Amino acid sequence: MSKNLTKRSEDYSKWYNELVVKADLAENSGVRGCMVIKPYGYAIWEKMQAELDKKFKETGHQNAYFPLFIPKSYFSKEASHVDGFAKECAVVTHYRLKTGEDGKTIEVDPDAKLEEELIVRPTSETIIWDTYRKWVQSYRDLPILVNQWANVVRWEMRTRLFLRTAEFLWQEGHTAHATKAEAIVEAEQMMNVYADFAENFMAIPVVKGVKTANERFAGAEETYCIEALMQDGKALQAGTSHFLGQNFAKAFDVKFANQEGKQDYVWATSWGVSTRLMGALVMTHSDDNGLVLPPNLAPIQVVIVPIHKTDEQLAEISEEVNTLVAKLRKLNISVKFDDRTTHKPGWKFNEYELKGVPVRIAMGPKDLENGTFEVARRDTLTKEVVAKDDVVNYIQDLLEKIQSELFNKALDYRNSHITEVNSFEEFKDILDNKGGFVAAHWDGTSETEEKIKDLTKATIRCIALDRVEEEGQCVLTGAPSKGRVLFAKAY
Amino acid sequence: MSKNLTKRSEDYSKWYNELVVKADLAENSGVRGCMVIKPYGYAIWEKMQAELDKKFKETGHQNAYFPLFIPKSYFSKEASHVDGFAKECAVVTHYRLKTGEDGKTIEVDPDAKLEEELIVRPTSETIIWDTYRKWVQSYRDLPILVNQWANVVRWEMRTRLFLRTAEFLWQEGHTAHATKAEAIVEAEQMMNVYADFAENFMAIPVVKGVKTANERFAGAEETYCIEALMQDGKALQAGTSHFLGQNFAKAFDVKFANQEGKQDYVWATSWGVSTRLMGALVMTHSDDNGLVLPPNLAPIQVVIVPIHKTDEQLAEISEEVNTLVAKLRKLNISVKFDDRTTHKPGWKFNEYELKGVPVRIAMGPKDLENGTFEVARRDTLTKEVVAKDDVVNYIQDLLEKIQSELFNKALDYRNSHITEVNSFEEFKDILDNKGGFVAAHWDGTSETEEKIKDLTKATIRCIALDRVEEEGQCVLTGAPSKGRVLFAKAY
Repeated sequence: MSKNLTKRSEDYSKWYNELVVKADLAENSGVRGCMVIKPYGYAIWEKMQAELDKKFKETGHQNAYFPLFIPKSYFSKEASHVDGFAKECAVVTHYRLKTGEDGKTIEVDPDAKLEEELIVRPTSETIIWDTYRKWVQSYRDLPILVNQWANVVRWEMRTRLFLRTAEFLWQEGHTAHATKAEAIVEAEQMMNVYADFAENFMAIPVVKGVKTANERFAGAEETYCIEALMQDGKALQAGTSHFLGQNFAKAFDVKFANQEGKQDYVWATSWGVSTRLMGALVMTHSDDNGLVLPPNLAPIQVVIVPIHKTDEQLAEISEEVNTLVAKLRKLNISVKFDDRTTHKPGWKFNEYELKGVPVRIAMGPKDLENGTFEVARRDTLTKEVVAKDDVVNYIQDLLEKIQSELFNKALDYRNSHITEVNSFEEFKDILDNKGGFVAAHWDGTSETEEKIKDLTKATIRCIALDRVEEEGQCVLTGAPSKGRVLFAKAY
Repeated sequence: MSKNLTKRSEDYSKWYNELVVKADLAENSGVRGCMVIKPYGYAIWEKMQAELDKKFKETGHQNAYFPLFIPKSYFSKEASHVDGFAKECAVVTHYRLKTGEDGKTIEVDPDAKLEEELIVRPTSETIIWDTYRKWVQSYRDLPILVNQWANVVRWEMRTRLFLRTAEFLWQEGHTAHATKAEAIVEAEQMMNVYADFAENFMAIPVVKGVKTANERFAGAEETYCIEALMQDGKALQAGTSHFLGQNFAKAFDVKFANQEGKQDYVWATSWGVSTRLMGALVMTHSDDNGLVLPPNLAPIQVVIVPIHKTDEQLAEISEEVNTLVAKLRKLNISVKFDDRTTHKPGWKFNEYELKGVPVRIAMGPKDLENGTFEVARRDTLTKEVVAKDDVVNYIQDLLEKIQSELFNKALDYRNSHITEVNSFEEFKDILDNKGGFVAAHWDGTSETEEKIKDLTKATIRCIALDRVEEEGQCVLTGAPSKGRVLFAKAY
């Protein structure tokens, strides 16, 4: 029953690429760097969206929609933003095609050149702050707490499904506030919302922290982030929340009259997570047999496969199963009864293992006789025979157990892969031979950070919010440091 | 308490444009033809999305996501599709910008020209059928029942908020089937889903029908549609469902082995509705005082405004109101208690009237004394005093009543604006002086249809599915006809 899946130990990157395609999550399209998210993958993304959207609304945000296109000149308005973003972008220059002289092909109509080129949004701060100018006059119009679910485009040269694609799906929150303090509270709140979501919904442990100046968002004064650790020891930035100061308000002239009637610039945040989280999901939990899904994210939480030789057996099994299905659905557990006769049980076992269905139930003639079901866990690959009177409670408990055990397993792995080092030799050794986060002292300069990156490919993933203040010497320069930061190679 | 809203009788088009902006539904952006959908408008769109998505899933469809960009050459593959679509499109020609010589502005990098231009999708048949080729080998892979929620771009020259914008939001279903009959059943099913949604959720009566060859989707063999009638007597196409035959399968070489093992081309449908429905919503129910929303679509179904002089009164009223709010929320009724002291009750009444909140409850000192609430309907502008013990049931019934009365009112209007005519003089007279659908005999030729359009601006909106077969003479040419078709001027 081979799935022809490369082993993680052989080639982690190949394993990932194969798994994403074979588990029907996504595939490459005919357009360079743009992916097709297949129904099974999209169903997982929808579950993420629904949970995040609920959390955003609970924290007072509303959704809205802003244009896909941004006039080129908007990008020049915020100086550091243009450096960080406006370069690798899809540029619309024309608005019409015409039939070629052969009457068959079509070509760009040179008469339909735009006066000003339009950029397909790589992120929407500029177009949104151009809009907020019209929405804000007084402190009474603040705060604006808006989120957008959208597609964005960044012309990446080397792309990988979910992790780095030219087009991806995301949400971007953009808020406007009357005070600096309120904006900072908002940026921190959203980092906490993301961390809660990653850990308690996706079962992915994350480190909360802030980025160094080097790694900060283009236009931000502070970038908060959540950093996850993949099974191959590389870090993955799973979400960011930016305190933007008054930078965009100044660039787009968004002022308000405060309670004293004085004009002031508005304070801003932005925050986002993307379909990249699908990559984090795969690389946190899955194994050599395929996808492993936390029950919260599984489009099918329980699959039931009948094992039978005769039609009579199938009929009897179906009767038992239908009763069980009805009971599980009442508990909002998503169940699929796969009674297709076109495929053998072994084929089905294999298929649902590949697709990461958390719980598989089988029922054969012996189970029928004994009044039992065989219940198998995808994550541990273990089986248990359960009496049919107990099975509903058993399944309900098991789904919760799998959810929390997946988190704990990932947490153990992550915690055992944060290594404190005190010399650059050790630093390199850990990076090369163990991987994970390297907790090291750093002198606080961008120069040293760059140098370490050049020497090791490791970057500072974050300055953890819970880091211990301690005196130390920079692992590279020996200059004084006030605490350790987390380095890692990263996706 | 003027809202400065133009009266419908003065200038319907101006009324619409003003209302969309003043009611906070949408506004124009800095990008020509692209709108910003504001939070209040987007909240209504989300309700439409949620209901449609539920209906799509109940009919067996799954969501997926396909690329925003389509290589130019894909459009040439389906001959009639390219004629209908590929002309007014946003064309991406470059993938990079660079800093200009002044070091400040940015310009398109001429070195980053794409080998093949990319079209921002105006609709996704081509990219999706290019993908389906990889998904289909055998009849066992069929049907594919997929829907996508996405943004699309059509470079319209004259744009109007929601009704015709360069970028708009929509869903597009794309299904693949083993047989012609199954594909036709699917296309008809989705037309019925749309009609059910329009009538029973949006309270918009629609005529179900098929388009003439002239009005058919580019690449379709049959276009099913639902046609609505706006208050100014113009028709609006509210949704379409296309039977595409094997056209796209042939263009993209999508074949399958049927049950007999023979290769055949796959049969297709596509179907969509868009943010245009927001325009239909406004122009079906609203009035000179602002928006009128059916309760199903109202982000706030009930607003409660306290009327008080003293803080003590407000406290007493709040106590009563909070009890009521809790009871209504238990029934899944969305309630807002607007106890802001920064705005007067009159201002609030005006605001919620403009925004179409279906039910407004006021409570003042007298109500407090008498144990009553004042309940006002937005649609009829009538008020009723209701005892507090009865108010929960009263509200619940009232919301259902408003929903059905709005539909009936629109249905009466629509039915009284389908006029049978038997001469071209009458045809023109009705169009000019009464408006609405004109039911007339037509000789079935595209030439006559075109001529009538040139003479009157009216097009055949549809051949209604329930039309009576009857012998007649074409209203323009006198040639024989087998039944009446519905003409109208249209959005």
